[in-house]
Amino acid sequence: MEIVKLNFEYSDDVTVINREQFEAHMRLYEGYVNKINEIDGLLADDPDLEGANSTYSEFRGIKRGETYALNGVILHEFYFENIGSNNNEPDEVVMNFLSRFFGSYELWQEHFVATAKASRGWVILCYDPRSDSLRNLSLDLHDYGNAAMSIPLLVLDMYEHAYFLQYADNKAEYIDNFMKNIDWSVVKDRIESM
Amino acid sequence: MEIVKLNFEYSDDVTVINREQFEAHMRLYEGYVNKINEIDGLLADDPDLEGANSTYSEFRGIKRGETYALNGVILHEFYFENIGSNNNEPDEVVMNFLSRFFGSYELWQEHFVATAKASRGWVILCYDPRSDSLRNLSLDLHDYGNAAMSIPLLVLDMYEHAYFLQYADNKAEYIDNFMKNIDWSVVKDRIESM
Amino acid sequence: MEIVKLNFEYSDDVTVINREQFEAHMRLYEGYVNKINEIDGLLADDPDLEGANSTYSEFRGIKRGETYALNGVILHEFYFENIGSNNNEPDEVVMNFLSRFFGSYELWQEHFVATAKASRGWVILCYDPRSDSLRNLSLDLHDYGNAAMSIPLLVLDMYEHAYFLQYADNKAEYIDNFMKNIDWSVVKDRIESM
Amino acid sequence: MEIVKLNFEYSDDVTVINREQFEAHMRLYEGYVNKINEIDGLLADDPDLEGANSTYSEFRGIKRGETYALNGVILHEFYFENIGSNNNEPDEVVMNFLSRFFGSYELWQEHFVATAKASRGWVILCYDPRSDSLRNLSLDLHDYGNAAMSIPLLVLDMYEHAYFLQYADNKAEYIDNFMKNIDWSVVKDRIESM
Repeated sequence: MEIVKLNFEYSDDVTVINREQFEAHMRLYEGYVNKINEIDGLLADDPDLEGANSTYSEFRGIKRGETYALNGVILHEFYFENIGSNNNEPDEVVMNFLSRFFGSYELWQEHFVATAKASRGWVILCYDPRSDSLRNLSLDLHDYGNAAMSIPLLVLDMYEHAYFLQYADNKAEYIDNFMKNIDWSVVKDRIESM
Repeated sequence: MEIVKLNFEYSDDVTVINREQFEAHMRLYEGYVNKINEIDGLLADDPDLEGANSTYSEFRGIKRGETYALNGVILHEFYFENIGSNNNEPDEVVMNFLSRFFGSYELWQEHFVATAKASRGWVILCYDPRSDSLRNLSLDLHDYGNAAMSIPLLVLDMYEHAYFLQYADNKAEYIDNFMKNIDWSVVKDRIESM
Repeated sequence: MEIVKLNFEYSDDVTVINREQFEAHMRLYEGYVNKINEIDGLLADDPDLEGANSTYSEFRGIKRGETYALNGVILHEFYFENIGSNNNEPDEVVMNFLSRFFGSYELWQEHFVATAKASRGWVILCYDPRSDSLRNLSLDLHDYGNAAMSIPLLVLDMYEHAYFLQYADNKAEYIDNFMKNIDWSVVKDRIESM
Repeated sequence: MEIVKLNFEYSDDVTVINREQFEAHMRLYEGYVNKINEIDGLLADDPDLEGANSTYSEFRGIKRGETYALNGVILHEFYFENIGSNNNEPDEVVMNFLSRFFGSYELWQEHFVATAKASRGWVILCYDPRSDSLRNLSLDLHDYGNAAMSIPLLVLDMYEHAYFLQYADNKAEYIDNFMKNIDWSVVKDRIESM
């Protein structure tokens, strides 16, 4: 059950970030893959369960790392998978799906972009089964802001490492370019396989 | 899509907490239901999207509340659903399922209890599709420690409000009594409907 | 430089909490003292500095524990020191001091109480040298919400462990009783020794 | 009591970061100054104290922003003040001071660098009056990891925005260059005015 790094290749279709930013980001993603495997190894290798404590314990440190690294892996994969299309109009099915929950595609877009500006980590458009609704979740960390049971449909990385090399503090331009480079066919697949 | 409070009734089968602790907890759960509905109302009612900002903005405050209240609702419901059985031996299917991922049922139990002691919020035994494995997630807040896409199977509330009225700082005894009062048939259902 | 637990004794002057709640709280305070000493020992004893990593490393776990346990000690001491007076009217010096920054003593009080209701950890009335002003800081954790360089003047514990044994979820009554049991002579001393 | 932005000018003495990285960082610092003033205005202008709530309330959002923006201002000022010297050997007074608490200057340095690698936000070498000791605090956010009452002596920004434009993910090189560009005379002044 070792987690194997997925292969994402830079191509001309990726317009939201340049190759340098892409490759720096890919190295960070690889770091999370390595860390979750290191952590899973530690958990399997007779950790000090007796000493477990919620103020500080070695075991607590490992468990905090587990949710951080695991989500670091998962969310980066969603992100890299859903960028890179030049033809980034959602089709009617997706449009209708978003409209049903947000009133209109445009209104969803405004909410998604605002959530990006309000977040320190990630934005996740997801389906939340509990309220039977779509939500634009705001995350401040890989593991802070996720919702239990929710199914990610579109993921945007707002960590500073996602854009700072290319955009410096011009966050708005990065978000704008992301919105123009979404691979909506991937989003559609995710909707259909819910 | 308003979230409606579920009805959980105290009964003699609930041995992990007494009626007073149960009812205080239920009032807090109701508070989360009310808050997520308040928040969903604010999000639907033309919030200030233009002013969105990740240091501070009114919209950011709402979005932080959203993931906190929503998970507060979801996790409490999982918790109340999976307590209250006097016959709390997992059957062979569940035993085998846990053994497959943790080596043995006993080893899973030790890890789950240690995770409870190491956590400030929740423990979630869940299935993580990314690594195709079971994990005992450690949460420090309702919305800090969840894993994207994961499916909760057994949930234990480690917030101080879950036990302090009855157990004061005797956290170990609360955990012990929880382990004796798990409704494993609920866990089995969750496994089977994955 | 070992941290030595301070001695706080329950007396009839402590009206904000009963003896049982006081003693449970005192045991938690003692736990933080023990933990920071354990952590300081680990830091002195050749920890794995080479492996330091911000996703997960043993050293990171220790450092996270350090700020949590240390503030757990400091803030509890401020709290226990500033409760327990039956004569809890601030004198004119203190009244004027609060009025100068908040407009009036009553207005400060309203802000302090509201901050308590809005916080998951602590409220700290403090002097902030940077803005040359008094602030009611809101903390969600022992080490989340403190301000660098600030000088605590009045500290209120809003962790659930501070009141749940006695008040259950009746947070408002706890805050109310705290406001009636502040030892303003201690606050005055803190102001004068700034 | 409005907070006024301090003036930091780039010069050839600043070797840890180039002008582009410096200026992007300066714009972010200015953003924090503007935000804390906005927040202080909101707090002064009759906020909704009645509705204060720790799950979500408008007031809670403002209070969370307050500690984040305020520390964002304070810590950036410490950081910009303590970089930019070409002659970056601490004198004997400082050397002895660090040695007294850490065993040796070299050992302090190893701990400080490891803390930088383990942190997502800041490292603060500070004096902690409670334990009468020096500590290298690890912060994950502007307002997460500070210690009450502590006095900052040397501050290093480890937010990704501090280095990513110039160093990409090469965090180690950034830390290395910081260590060579500390203005120890500033640190000495801070020690002497404690």
